Amino acid sequence: MRPVTGYAAYGDRAGLRPLEFTRRDLRPDDVAVRVTHVGVCHSDLHAVEGLAPGAGPLVPGHEFTGEVTAVGAEVTRVAVGDAVAVGNIVDSCGRCENCLAHRESYCREFPQLTYGGVDRHDGTPTQGAYSTEYVVRDAFTYRLPAGLDPAGAAPLMCAGVTTWSPLRRAGVGPGQQVGVVGLGGLGHLAVRFAVALGARVTVFTTSPAKADDARALGARDVVVSTDPAAMAAVAGRLDFVLDTASGAHDLAPYLGALRLDGTLCVLGLPERYVVPPMSLLGRTLTVSGSGGTAETQEMLDFCGEHGLTADVEVLPLAEVDTAFERLARNDVRYRFVLAVAP
Amino acid sequence: MRPVTGYAAYGDRAGLRPLEFTRRDLRPDDVAVRVTHVGVCHSDLHAVEGLAPGAGPLVPGHEFTGEVTAVGAEVTRVAVGDAVAVGNIVDSCGRCENCLAHRESYCREFPQLTYGGVDRHDGTPTQGAYSTEYVVRDAFTYRLPAGLDPAGAAPLMCAGVTTWSPLRRAGVGPGQQVGVVGLGGLGHLAVRFAVALGARVTVFTTSPAKADDARALGARDVVVSTDPAAMAAVAGRLDFVLDTASGAHDLAPYLGALRLDGTLCVLGLPERYVVPPMSLLGRTLTVSGSGGTAETQEMLDFCGEHGLTADVEVLPLAEVDTAFERLARNDVRYRFVLAVAP
Repeated sequence: MRPVTGYAAYGDRAGLRPLEFTRRDLRPDDVAVRVTHVGVCHSDLHAVEGLAPGAGPLVPGHEFTGEVTAVGAEVTRVAVGDAVAVGNIVDSCGRCENCLAHRESYCREFPQLTYGGVDRHDGTPTQGAYSTEYVVRDAFTYRLPAGLDPAGAAPLMCAGVTTWSPLRRAGVGPGQQVGVVGLGGLGHLAVRFAVALGARVTVFTTSPAKADDARALGARDVVVSTDPAAMAAVAGRLDFVLDTASGAHDLAPYLGALRLDGTLCVLGLPERYVVPPMSLLGRTLTVSGSGGTAETQEMLDFCGEHGLTADVEVLPLAEVDTAFERLARNDVRYRFVLAVAP
Repeated sequence: MRPVTGYAAYGDRAGLRPLEFTRRDLRPDDVAVRVTHVGVCHSDLHAVEGLAPGAGPLVPGHEFTGEVTAVGAEVTRVAVGDAVAVGNIVDSCGRCENCLAHRESYCREFPQLTYGGVDRHDGTPTQGAYSTEYVVRDAFTYRLPAGLDPAGAAPLMCAGVTTWSPLRRAGVGPGQQVGVVGLGGLGHLAVRFAVALGARVTVFTTSPAKADDARALGARDVVVSTDPAAMAAVAGRLDFVLDTASGAHDLAPYLGALRLDGTLCVLGLPERYVVPPMSLLGRTLTVSGSGGTAETQEMLDFCGEHGLTADVEVLPLAEVDTAFERLARNDVRYRFVLAVAP
C-alpha cells in the first residue's frame, strides 16, 4: 500500500484536518499521480457540509493535476513523469452502451466517483485528491497539454468539462448566439469556451457589477436578469442557453430568450423544475451531467491550443478551511485551487 | 359577401345551433372551399365549454376537407373543383424568421387561427368550419391526395400534423424505438405515422383494454403505464416519446423510458410541468405546437402514398351535440367527423 497525506472532513463541522491513509498498490491498469493542484468545487463544500456527525473521514477533491510517479504493468497511455489531469470519475462498467460511446458519466451501473464512491474492484470507499497522491485507472487519466498552467487547468476537469460537454453537444460555433447564466466557476469557463468556439455570448447575471468581468472574458452582451426590460429585449434571440446557476430559480425567462428550436441546458439540480408549458413550446429543456473520457481529452486539447484555463486563486492545501469559508459566501473569482505539492 | 350556414355555440350550454352568416368576398389570394367533412377536436369542446355566457356566436372547426368552389384572381396553387384540406391556421405575418422557414404556427405575430382568431386584414373574428363554406388564403390551402377518404383525412389537418411534425423533427425512422403516450385522436395517428416511418413503436396507455387496438395500429409493444414493473422494464430503452395525453400527469416515468440523449415531446398543455431534475439528466424535454405549411403538405403527401388516414366515426353536422357529449366522456375511436355537405 502507498502512504498518503490528505485533508479530511469528519462530519463535526470543525474544519478539515490532516489524515494519513493509504492508496492501493498499483493494479496492471493503474496510474499513481502525485497531486500538485486540486480545485475546490461547490460539490466539495456540499459533501463536507452534508456529512453526518461521526461519518468520515472524507477526503474531497475531484479536479486535479499532477505528475505520474508510477504506472501498472499494462499502462501505455501515460508514462512516469507525464503531466496529467483527473476529473470526477475514475472508473465505470466499460460495457454498457453509454460507456462504449465514451459517455462514462452516464454509465448504467453508475460511474465510480473520485471521492465518496466505492471502488468497483475491491469495494473500498474512494478518497479524493485533497491529498499528496491519487491512484487511478489509466483510462481516466488525461494528458495535460504542454504550456497549460497546472493550477488553472485543475478546474477544467470538473467545471470545465461540465460546461464544455453541453456546448459541444449543442454544436455551438460561429454564427450562433449563446447565453450563459451565472458567472462563477462554471459560468466563466462556459463564456471562454463559447467565445473560443466562435459564438456570440450573452451573459445573464443578477450582479450588474459583473458586467465588466463578463466582457473581459469575451462576452458581447450582458443582461441583468432582474431587469425585465433587458430580459424582454433578448427574448427569442438565442440559439442555446447554458444555465450554470445553482439553487432553484425560474427557468421560464431563459426559455423565453430562445429562438424557435433553441435549447436551454441546465446544470444545477434543485429539487424540481417547474416549467410553464408555453415557455417550452418549440423549445427544448435538457440537463447535462459531466463529460465522458473522449470529450474530456478533447476539451484539454482545445484548451492547450487556445491557452485556455480557469481564473483561479491558489491557496496552500493547509488553508482549505479558508477556501471553504470564502466559497460559501461566493468570495472567489472564479475558483479556488489548493496547491498540494511542496 | 358569401352566405353560409354553420353551427354555433353561444355560451349558454344549450348546445350548438344553426347560424346563418357570411364569408368575405374573395380577395385576390383567397380560396372558397365547400366544406364536406370537419373533424371534432378536443379544442373545439374546450372552446365551446369555455365560452362566457352571452359570448358568441362561435362556429368551431379547424380540421376539414372539401372542394374548391371559387378562387381569387391571383390564385394558382389550386383550382375550382380541386379536393383540398385546411387546418388550424389560416394566415400569418409571412415575414418573421419562423414564417420564412415555413414554421407559421410559431409566427412571431401569432398565427391567425381558423376560428376564434381575428382576420389580419379586416379585423373580423374568424369562424370555423362547422359550416357549409370557408374562405381561406391560398397559402394555407392544401392539396388532398387522390384516393384519401375525405372523412378520414379531415383529422389529419390538426391531430395529424400535430403528431407528424414532432416525429419528423425528431428524425423518427427505421432502427428507432418510439413511444406514444395515449391512444386517442392524436395518439392513434402518431402510432400509424411512426410505424409507417419505420420505427418500432411502444404504446403507453392506462387502459389494458386498448392493447389489442394498439397492436392493430401497428404497435409492437404495449405498456400499461400504471404497472410499475412494466414501466421499469422499458426504462432507458426508447429514443423518442411523444406524449399525447391531455391533462396534468407525471412526466418523469416517460423521461425514464428514454435512452441517453432521448427526447420526450409533450403535446398537452397543463398549467405547468413539474420535472425532477435527475429524470432530465442527459435527456431532453420539449413541447410541440402544430405544424407549418411545408410539413402539413408533406404529411398529406405521405398519407396519400401510404393510404393513411384517421379512424373516424362520421355523424351529420346536425348531430354535433351528440359528438360533443360522447367526446366529453372519451367515447370515440378515434375521432368524430361531421359530414357537412348534403
